[in-house]
Formats: sequence, C-alpha cells, structure tokens
Amino acid sequence: MPMPASVQSGSGQLPITQSFSVAVTGTHEVSLDAGVQRFTKQLSQLTGIPFRPAAGATPTLTIHADHGRDAIQKLGEDESYELTVSDSGAKIDAPTPLGALCGLETFLQLVTITPNGFAAPAVTIKDQPRFPWRGMLIDVSRHFIPIDVLKRNLDGMAAVKMNVLHWHLSDDQGFRAESKKFPKLTGMGSDGQFYTQDEIRDLISYAHDRGIRVVPEFDMPGHTRSWFLGYPELASGPGPYTLEGGGIDPAIDPTRESTYKFLETFIAEMAKLFPDAYFHIGGDEVDGKQWDANPKIQEFIKAHGMKNNQDLQAYFNKRLEKIVTKNHKIMVGWDEILHPDLPKNIVVQSWRGQQSLAVAAQQGYRGLLSYGYYLDLMWPTSRHYAVDPMSGAAANLTPEQKALILGGESCQWAEWVTPENIDSHIWPRNAAIAERFWSPQSVVDVNSMYARMHAVSLELESLGLMHLAARRQMLQRMAGTADITSLKVLANVVEPVKDYARSDTLQRPIDFHMPLNHMIDAAYPESDTARQFGEAVQQFIQSGYKDEAAEAQIRTRLLLWRNNDAKLHPLLEQSSLLQENVPISQNLAMLGATGLQALDYLDKGQPEPDLWKTQQAAVIEQAKKPVAGLLLQVTEPVEQLVQAASKITVH
Amino acid sequence: MPMPASVQSGSGQLPITQSFSVAVTGTHEVSLDAGVQRFTKQLSQLTGIPFRPAAGATPTLTIHADHGRDAIQKLGEDESYELTVSDSGAKIDAPTPLGALCGLETFLQLVTITPNGFAAPAVTIKDQPRFPWRGMLIDVSRHFIPIDVLKRNLDGMAAVKMNVLHWHLSDDQGFRAESKKFPKLTGMGSDGQFYTQDEIRDLISYAHDRGIRVVPEFDMPGHTRSWFLGYPELASGPGPYTLEGGGIDPAIDPTRESTYKFLETFIAEMAKLFPDAYFHIGGDEVDGKQWDANPKIQEFIKAHGMKNNQDLQAYFNKRLEKIVTKNHKIMVGWDEILHPDLPKNIVVQSWRGQQSLAVAAQQGYRGLLSYGYYLDLMWPTSRHYAVDPMSGAAANLTPEQKALILGGESCQWAEWVTPENIDSHIWPRNAAIAERFWSPQSVVDVNSMYARMHAVSLELESLGLMHLAARRQMLQRMAGTADITSLKVLANVVEPVKDYARSDTLQRPIDFHMPLNHMIDAAYPESDTARQFGEAVQQFIQSGYKDEAAEAQIRTRLLLWRNNDAKLHPLLEQSSLLQENVPISQNLAMLGATGLQALDYLDKGQPEPDLWKTQQAAVIEQAKKPVAGLLLQVTEPVEQLVQAASKITVH
Repeated sequence: MPMPASVQSGSGQLPITQSFSVAVTGTHEVSLDAGVQRFTKQLSQLTGIPFRPAAGATPTLTIHADHGRDAIQKLGEDESYELTVSDSGAKIDAPTPLGALCGLETFLQLVTITPNGFAAPAVTIKDQPRFPWRGMLIDVSRHFIPIDVLKRNLDGMAAVKMNVLHWHLSDDQGFRAESKKFPKLTGMGSDGQFYTQDEIRDLISYAHDRGIRVVPEFDMPGHTRSWFLGYPELASGPGPYTLEGGGIDPAIDPTRESTYKFLETFIAEMAKLFPDAYFHIGGDEVDGKQWDANPKIQEFIKAHGMKNNQDLQAYFNKRLEKIVTKNHKIMVGWDEILHPDLPKNIVVQSWRGQQSLAVAAQQGYRGLLSYGYYLDLMWPTSRHYAVDPMSGAAANLTPEQKALILGGESCQWAEWVTPENIDSHIWPRNAAIAERFWSPQSVVDVNSMYARMHAVSLELESLGLMHLAARRQMLQRMAGTADITSLKVLANVVEPVKDYARSDTLQRPIDFHMPLNHMIDAAYPESDTARQFGEAVQQFIQSGYKDEAAEAQIRTRLLLWRNNDAKLHPLLEQSSLLQENVPISQNLAMLGATGLQALDYLDKGQPEPDLWKTQQAAVIEQAKKPVAGLLLQVTEPVEQLVQAASKITVH
Repeated sequence: MPMPASVQSGSGQLPITQSFSVAVTGTHEVSLDAGVQRFTKQLSQLTGIPFRPAAGATPTLTIHADHGRDAIQKLGEDESYELTVSDSGAKIDAPTPLGALCGLETFLQLVTITPNGFAAPAVTIKDQPRFPWRGMLIDVSRHFIPIDVLKRNLDGMAAVKMNVLHWHLSDDQGFRAESKKFPKLTGMGSDGQFYTQDEIRDLISYAHDRGIRVVPEFDMPGHTRSWFLGYPELASGPGPYTLEGGGIDPAIDPTRESTYKFLETFIAEMAKLFPDAYFHIGGDEVDGKQWDANPKIQEFIKAHGMKNNQDLQAYFNKRLEKIVTKNHKIMVGWDEILHPDLPKNIVVQSWRGQQSLAVAAQQGYRGLLSYGYYLDLMWPTSRHYAVDPMSGAAANLTPEQKALILGGESCQWAEWVTPENIDSHIWPRNAAIAERFWSPQSVVDVNSMYARMHAVSLELESLGLMHLAARRQMLQRMAGTADITSLKVLANVVEPVKDYARSDTLQRPIDFHMPLNHMIDAAYPESDTARQFGEAVQQFIQSGYKDEAAEAQIRTRLLLWRNNDAKLHPLLEQSSLLQENVPISQNLAMLGATGLQALDYLDKGQPEPDLWKTQQAAVIEQAKKPVAGLLLQVTEPVEQLVQAASKITVH
C-alpha cells in the first residue's frame, strides 16, 4: 500500500536470510546511500535478523538509479521505478534516487514470514504515482508537536510514498517557527514551545532524505492572533491579545504600509529557511468582523474603490504574492485566495470540495484537494478512500484542466491531539489516503484496502510509529495498576464523535491546555471490531440466517459484551478518568443481551413479542446517543438483528 | 519500590491537578534543577496532565536540599531524604540533591488515579539506603547495546534508586570503548559497533544527572580475545585471533614488560575518560591454558618463585593495581583477584557467593555481592529477592567486617539479549533486586514484592522502558499480520530454560550474530500467569477443594489452555519462527484437559481410575521437557491437581 500501477506475479520467492545484502550501481548519492542504510536497518527490524553478508558475495538486491536528484526536491520530479523479484535476487531500476527510494519501500512491504522463513514473493512491479503532490498537513499551532514525533510521522509518510509535509506553523493559538528578525513571534506568540531554525533545517533535511518536500504555511491575514501578542501594530483592532483568545477573530491590517514592510522582512527570512519552491500563505476563514469594526479600514476600502472585505483580502493577497514571488517562491493558499487578479502560477488548496477545485482549474489555476481528507473529523477510512480529486465537479474538466490538479493533502488539525495520541489520529487511515494519491483511480476495492491497511499498520508500528502503543498506554493510565482486558473490550467498540461535534458540544472556546487523557482521546477513530461485527451481521442476514460461521462469530462477540460490564464496572468507578464511561459500558452490556435475544428468536424462527420489540427500540435509541464524546459503533448491527427478528413470520 | 526505611500514613490525599507546581528552596544546582524538570515531565506523562500553574501560586511540592553535591559522585554520599505529603502540599527535605532526587522518585510512585482524580496519599516517609553501592552490570560486549537503550535503562535504575552502572565494556567478543591511544582496540576488536569518547562522556553526564555513578570494567587478563585482533603482542599465545573465537580462551601475557607499558597508557587514558573513583579490572575466569601452553610463561613462573598460574595472576593484579592507583583510582575486581598482596582499599565483587564475600571481609577487604543477582539466568524474581548480601556466611561477620560489604550489583550478561529484548530481561525483576539493596533487611514479604513490582513495571513502561512492548512487537513479527491473541495465551505460560541450559544445549560456541527472534527471545523470564495459577491451585488444595473462587479461576484458565491449540496450531505452522512451538502448544492443550478432568474428579469426590492416572503421568512427564528452549510453567500446578485427585478415598 499504495497499490503499484502494475503488478505481475512470478513464481517462487526470494528468501531473506542473514546473508541478505544490497548493492547500489549507477548513480551514488548521499540520500540514496542513506536510504539504503535505513532500508537495511528497517528490514532487519521487521525480520529480527542482523544481516551478515559474506564479503564479496553476490548482492541479494541491486539498485540502479540512472541519474542524481536535485539538491532541492522539485514538484513532479520522477518517482517511478521498476522492481523485479525472483527466487535468486531482486533489482530496483529507477530514473532517479527518488524512484529507487519508493522501490525500497515497496520491497519492505513484500517481505513476509512464511513456513520457510522470511521471503519476498517473485514479482515484477512497474510503478509511478498518479499525482505529483501527495501531502499531509500537520497543524503544530493548536498543540505543539515535537520534532521527534514529526520525524516518526515522516517515516510513516515515506513508507506510504507521500512526498509533501505541509507544516502549518502558525495560527491563532501559537506561532511555532523561530524568526530571528521578529523574535517576539515565538517569544510572546507561543507558550515557549517552538522550533528553532536549526531544528527546522534538521527536519527539512530528514524529510529530504526520505523524498519528502517541506512546504511551510504561515496563515494570514486571519488565524493570526499569535502574531499580535508581540506585534500588535500588525492587527486590525486594538487588542490586547492573548493566546487564549475569545471574542472576535483578529486579522492582519492590510491597509497599512508598515504591514507589508514587516512581511517583506519576515517572508524573506522564511523563504531562505525553507528551500522548497512553494510557500503557503493560508488565506482561509477571514470573517472580516475586525475589519468591519475598524473605520479606517472601511475608509480604505471605499477610497480604493473596493466593494467589500473580500476585495480587501484580494488586495492583500496580491501584494503578498509579489513579496512571495520576489523571494523566488510560488504562492499556495486555501480556496479563498482564488481571485482573477492573481497570476496563474499560484496553487489553490481546496478545503471546500472538488467544486472549488474545478472552478480554479477552469480559470487556469493549479489545485490540491484536501476536502474529504480531514483526519481530525474521525471519519472511517472507507469514507476518505471514496473521495477522489478527480471526482465530482472535477470529473467534467477537460484533460488540460485536469492536468492542473496536482494531487491532494490529508490534514491533521490539532485541536484535539497531543504528541502522545497524534499518531493514532493519523495512522493507519492516512495510508489509504496516500493510496488514493499514488495508485490508479481504478483502485477502489474497500475490502482489499482494509486488509492491506492492516498490514501497513503493523509495519508502521514496527518502524516506530506509536498509533497502537499509545492507546494501550493511555488505557493503562486511566486504569492505574488494574488489568485492562475488560477496558479494552469497551475501547474496541467505541469511536469518538464525528466532524466538529466535540468542539460544538463545548459551547465555548476550546481550552488548548486541558488534559487530553480520557477514553475519547485514546479511542481509535475507526473501530475494527465494530466494522468486522457489522460485516458479519450483514453476511448472516444475507445468508437468510444460515451462515453458521458468521452466527458463531456474532454470538461470541455479543456474549463478551453482555458479560463485560460486570467486570468493568468496578474499575470504571475507581478512576476519575473512567467514571464518565459507566453508561456506555452498561449500554454495551444491554446491546449484547438484546443481540443475543434477537439471535435466539431468529434461530427458533419465532417472532418477537411486541413488548420486547418496544423495549429493545428504547435500548437501541439510548445506545445511539454519544456518551462522554463516544459513539457505540456496534449499535446499528444489533439494531439490524432486532429488525431481522421482527420480520419473522410463522409458517 | 524500593520500600522506604520508614513510612507513616497520614489522612487525606494531595490532589494532582493542572495547577501542580514545584519549587526548590535551599541549594540550587544544575542536576537538581534538571531532576525537577525531568520529574515534572514524568509526572505529566504518568497522569496525562499538562501542568499550568498560575504565576505566583503556592507551590504544591517544595524541595529543600541543605547543600550541594560533589562534581563527581562519591561512594557513600548522603542519599537520605524526608518526604511529607498532606492534603494541602508536599515537601522533600534532604541533606543533598542526591537525596532530593530519591525523594522525587518516591513521590512519583505515590501518585495514583482515584475516583477523585490523580492524587498522592498523605504520608511521612523517612528514608535512606541500606547499602551505599547499588548497581547493575550491563555487558555490552557479547551484544552491543546502543546509548539510547542504556539511557532508558538508566531512567529505570533511577526510578528504583540504583546508583551504579557497571559498564562491562570489553570481553572476548567485542571491545566497545573508543581508545584514541589504541584505536585498533575497537577498530579491529569490534564489529564496528562501539561508543565514541563523546558518547561515553554524554552517558556519564546523563547518569550523573540521575544520581548514578558509572564504573567501567575492562576485563583482564582473561576475557580479552577482542584486544588481540589489533594488538596480538599482548597475548600469551600466537594467534591469529578472530572475534568468533573457538579453541582455548586467550589471556594477556603478564610476563612481558611491554604489556605493562601498554596498560600504563591505556589505563591513564580511560582513567581520564571515566571520572568515577573506582575502576574495574575484571580478573575472572582465567583458565590458564594459554599460559600452560607457553614455555616462556612457565619459565617466568619458575624464575620468580611462583607456584602456579594463580600466583602469576596475582603478580599481574599487583602490577595492575599500581597502575590503577597511580591514576588515582581504586581497583575493583571479581572474586579471583583476592590475594593478600593487594592493598586493603580494593573492592572484591563476588560472583561465587556470600562465602567468598565473607572471606574477603575477614581479611579486611570491601566487597559487593553479585551471586544470586544474575538476570541472565532467568530466575523467578522471588529467588533473586531471597538472596541477601548479609545472609549465609556473611551473617556471621563482626559488625566491622559487615561494614565492609558495600552492597551488590545485578548482572545482565549479554549472550542472549539484543537492544530489542534487553529491557524485558532486566525489568521488572531488577526492581526487586534494587529493593534488596535499598530497603531494610526485614523487607522480605514476597506477595507484597510482586504487587509493588507490578506497579513499578507499569511506571517504567510509561517512562519509556520497552520490557512489555518488546514482547508484543516480537510476537507480532513471528505471526506476520495474523491476530496474536492465541499466541499470547501460549507466551503467557512459558519461560526460557534456566541457568546456562540454553548455552549448554548448543554444544558449540554461541554465534553472537544469530537472529534472536524466536519465542524464547520474546518470552518473559518469569510468567505472571503461571505464578498466579500456581497460587490459585495451592489455595484451592489448602481449602480442601472448597474455595470456589479459586476453582473458578483455575477452571477458566484450564479451559482457555485446552482450547487454545486448535486456534493456534494453523498460525504456528505458517511461520518458520513458530513451527518449533507446535509441541509445546499441544502440551498446553493436554495439560488443560488433564487439569479439567482432575478438577472433575475432585468435584465429584470420585477417585481417578488407575489407567487415567498412568496416562496423565505420561502427559505431565512430556510437558516438563523443554521445547525450543521453553518451559511450560503451569505443569507443576496441574500435576498437583492430579495428585490431589489421586488421593481421594471413597467414604
């Protein structure tokens, strides 16, 4: 995963033994050599085999790159490769080291344990990406994410062939990139947690080694509260400003020349720090209230013949674009920056949908899709997987217009993540999005996706990601020293509420410093158990209640759930972090009992008594309500069983 | 854990909330300030709470150290502290920052989750160590252990108040400390894996911050094969030498002046690199065969009026001791160095038992006990815990002689560990040994020890140790992408063979580069499940078969085991790493069935048929035999059930 463009199976397999070795022919290059070293270490980690090839032995895997890569990775640089594995050896051929690195990641995924040891199956793979821009945005403003956590996520991105880290470095809640010209940006505009320029350079080089570009985003003119603590003169309103915020959303004042003088200096500094050709200026969600409230700004709008705040933002973007261009960068921004006054080389990133991407393409602008790929919305993987940059409105574009769609980016907004649980919010779901950007549009089989994503998930955990380990750690923290077996049974069937429900239920601004140590923070965004249970129920019903294997599976689970609360309840009561889950554990027990009774009726072919049905409807209604921000994701399949049983007619 | 010298419970508890803060009064010092920062981070990690104390608020925890600590930590430096916790605040008072650091570790262990949030119970603790030297030896020669793994183990040592890392840096299989004077020591005497001097200094400083001394060991004149690859002129035989070895054990030639010239330069260099006052020269297990085989050496022995090789080693040690002393260090060595010619300030470390410790003390030498604390022998914790430096022969010493016993060291010899599984060989058992060295001799309750060790084990995992995570990772590797639930059921009841059985069964030298990725490498040295099952069986039998709770627990486990092989068998067959466990999984199933039948006979008060008894004896006999280096640790309790059932007489 991602599925290669072309896979042809051979016969036999290549054993991976202690004598495994790699040789690079053709172009030698620092990042390729480092990549080979990393690959060898990872393969050793995955297999538990310390490699000890005999001196002078024929290499097991030969890597050939035709020519070198640019010092600064370019959009659209060739990432194609051919990988052939036979029972006697393997070979990766690629025009560039970037392609060779992709081939190495594919090889890693081919290696599995077999009855005869670790081995890669014989195969011929010809592969290249569908889109040249395959990114992930990580918001480090709302919650600071340390460099080591970003690094392990870059490892994960490399494993699934993503090639852009979109680093959302500033927002209302914190400015995270050191500016030597304007030290108060982080000095006053953060809680003391930010990246030094040395750390930034180090991360960029780490990403470069893995074939990943780093595109910085400094969001303006909105989402800029953190800038104003140190530099209130940039703001459109008087302040004072605090990171905690409240009140209206502040924005940069686009009417003052001093603003542009500041940005000239700031962008020049950042343009040097970040070598990538693209520079993201944000531009989203300016609500304009602060502009409305400032008479001088409204005067400026009139004086310059503008109609409204949107025109004012376009004016700001135009001036910003000149500064960005002067620093030899290409401007990227969110949907809202789209305006005919801007040159055609800018890139529009759509958080709103394929529609706005299509509109941009029709006007000749390049675009990226992020709508549908927001990891923080807690969607099931299948829902992200179904979103395609070329579907919807984009499907009707001309080939030339379609060529303007560069790819997309998943987005990990950081309202509700910490360094501890961010991995589990990103992975493994992000692997399926990566496949959407890399693999042919025809790769859409959801069952295959889930099976392969499971394998990638284990691979990533073995390579150092913490998406599985973190939940265990967090559940244990909630439970103290108690055994967490029954707590895991509950955790396995719940998911956090979806979309913006968690923020919405607060009915006040989010406190970004509150502890995120509850079940909702530990739960996986998607429950494998619930998905598998739902599938078994589907299968059982579709079989006319005859599929015994499915029924046995359903019954085992229902029994486990019915009996779980009796064990779990005392533990929940003992912990302030778990008490809020008492009702959902009871709901699970009731659902288990309901499901078992429904199964019994189905088995006997006996219709349900009316009173029972009414009772069960109440149970199910209650189980559907979120508890402590958690949804009991096995409710619908149980409801289906009850409904199935209610349709029985006596012959 | 370790249990403090004096604990007085109070009433109420101190809540740990977001406003938690620490203040240091009295002596401020770099390592104390760093310790407080580390403590705050660890407490935040344990609770999941990001602390945000209000400016100027009363500190929750106040720390007072009377005076500073020495730049180089001394043996016997004051580590005592007083910790008082009330419902309104906590206070640590200590003569030195070392004591304050110990108090912080105790505070961390007091914090638990309660129905009302995280809290520390009100308590007054007055604490100081029983022994001033509480160490752990880590062998990094047989398998190289990277700095980051050592660091997390230093964190673990600090958590249980151990204060000496005994760094076994050279042995036959690898020389691991960079010498700039003799670069071929690592250049030819290792597989390329060694510590640079910068890394060594960094580790020493890391340990110092945690109140831990670092004592280097360069083992000589035996265990020195790795030295001879680069410097064959030091050896007593002609060579050539390889790290893989074979043949007789080589030793340094103590008869040549050039040897002492080499050691003068080498020890001077290492004495500067390692600031600790103690310097370990090994001195163990010189079998003398190479000396016997060298006529020049035998001539030397005669010419100098020595009786044998032992005298020659004493001569060597005497000259070595002069060099060590000249470099302002105190010599430490294993039992074998004990010789009246050596000055009384040396320290003898006993791997042979309390007897040799007592002999040394009677002669006025200081001593350390390591016999009984060899973690690589895979003993159950209770067996280590029962060993006391002051028991056996040492119990009869005079108070003055007893005062010469400085403490002890656990030993992690590295024949069978890798960076991946070393944590699980050390932890949590090492915590119980640490308690033996710190707590009063009267602290011996085994049940209390196991309960507290369980809590420490979870604490350590949360602080970054990998002793629990590693097994999961390794089992998953063996299983590929399959579910490992049934594999864990098996893994939970097996232990690696004990003592030197694993090496002995090889009947050839160990290949230190073989993959250690089998079940024996993943299994915990001690099975909690087996211990608890054994206890339940004891309890059930002692209750006259009336304890229903114990019986239910026994029955649940036996059922699980009886049914497990059917699920597990296909998985075992699929993996080359697991196939060898097919018989032990079958044995477990048979034991489960046997145990259930025995229970049934007991329940019915019906005597077992003779034929059945004979069959079960065979089953149990088979289950006792190691399979793939693994012992099925639930065999004895099942045997007890069968024996109990066979004693039934019909009334």
